[in-house]
Amino acid sequence: MDIQKIQADLAQFAAERDWDKFHSPKNLTMALAGEAGELVALFQWMSEDESANIPANSHKHARIREEMADVFIYLAQLAYVLDVDIEQTVNDKIADNVKRYPIELSKGNALKYTERNDI
Amino acid sequence: MDIQKIQADLAQFAAERDWDKFHSPKNLTMALAGEAGELVALFQWMSEDESANIPANSHKHARIREEMADVFIYLAQLAYVLDVDIEQTVNDKIADNVKRYPIELSKGNALKYTERNDI
Amino acid sequence: MDIQKIQADLAQFAAERDWDKFHSPKNLTMALAGEAGELVALFQWMSEDESANIPANSHKHARIREEMADVFIYLAQLAYVLDVDIEQTVNDKIADNVKRYPIELSKGNALKYTERNDI
Amino acid sequence: MDIQKIQADLAQFAAERDWDKFHSPKNLTMALAGEAGELVALFQWMSEDESANIPANSHKHARIREEMADVFIYLAQLAYVLDVDIEQTVNDKIADNVKRYPIELSKGNALKYTERNDI
Repeated sequence: MDIQKIQADLAQFAAERDWDKFHSPKNLTMALAGEAGELVALFQWMSEDESANIPANSHKHARIREEMADVFIYLAQLAYVLDVDIEQTVNDKIADNVKRYPIELSKGNALKYTERNDI
Repeated sequence: MDIQKIQADLAQFAAERDWDKFHSPKNLTMALAGEAGELVALFQWMSEDESANIPANSHKHARIREEMADVFIYLAQLAYVLDVDIEQTVNDKIADNVKRYPIELSKGNALKYTERNDI
Repeated sequence: MDIQKIQADLAQFAAERDWDKFHSPKNLTMALAGEAGELVALFQWMSEDESANIPANSHKHARIREEMADVFIYLAQLAYVLDVDIEQTVNDKIADNVKRYPIELSKGNALKYTERNDI
Repeated sequence: MDIQKIQADLAQFAAERDWDKFHSPKNLTMALAGEAGELVALFQWMSEDESANIPANSHKHARIREEMADVFIYLAQLAYVLDVDIEQTVNDKIADNVKRYPIELSKGNALKYTERNDI
């Protein structure tokens, strides 16, 4: 994935419309949260099984892809204005998770995983 | 960015811990919304100016990078289980936005941009 | 529920700490979104059945109540600074929904309800 | 505010449409997060000052009230299915906050308040 090209395209798109002025990090996190909200809303009345069996050619799948794109776009713009290297940050986080959740302690241990959210 | 490698690493991480069973699309959108909420919360009491001037070596910046990584990770996992090509989807969305917001109508027109959210 | 007393207590709490200055409507919606994210995260790996059977005396239930309180608190503060009568607004919305979703068309029609989110 | 009447009206509305089956706690937190996302999105490109000066008779204000009502409605339904007394829970949380943030330590101390989100 050419994230630099995507970020450059988004920067040009905003600059041509004089919309850069709206793109403070604070505002971009709000936009990202808004799109994450639209994405989760598409799944709110589905069962887990239904969510795993949405036909790729359905209107619903297209809506989901669109919201995923919006989340990605605001995250890429946020990384751009904060000068964050997403790939590096993600790989660092995965390495941290590997240490934080040893296989022998975590395997088949739903509770432990769930309780991450209790901390 | 090697998104396929990231997705493969995440799939292996989950499989080794028998956590795949939690990763329905429905659940992953909830996790993504949760991380987006943590990200926006880091900015809630900052002014826009403050948000644009967070030192890269500060604890705050590290927290922000970590939440951005978490948002990305859940989005990448969601794309994996739904078999969505994020790069293609993002480029399609950017092309749509170029048509949807012609420069001549959009330039310096904050209201129009704002009102996207009113539709 | 004495919402006016809750709002007065919250206003006093903020004023005593000189925190009013943080409570612009924009910032309060960010705080509310953050708390909603924490709430949804508590449920992300639970099945629907598990979510309906959380013991009232469990740590998890206490965590959920706390996040619900936080969502309510920011909503009440937002209503206060925007001078919105929540009860009136809610009753108006329920009346709208009664018209929007006639029983004869909506009953047992999951799809229709789901598709609200597609509009 | 007659929260019991609101909850009874909502329960009747759902029962008449056979929509109770969708209203697991898990699903209701997703719906709440979705509405919180719509609410924060209405403010994403506004300055804090603009957000504090939205005319009460504007279309924007009406949109905000509607999203606030939706957040409240899902919170009230969640409280209903989890058998949570919102007023009690909110008053408990306010009492906790009074202890957690002593006036002498918190007054004019933006950093401390901000750093709540860093824990």
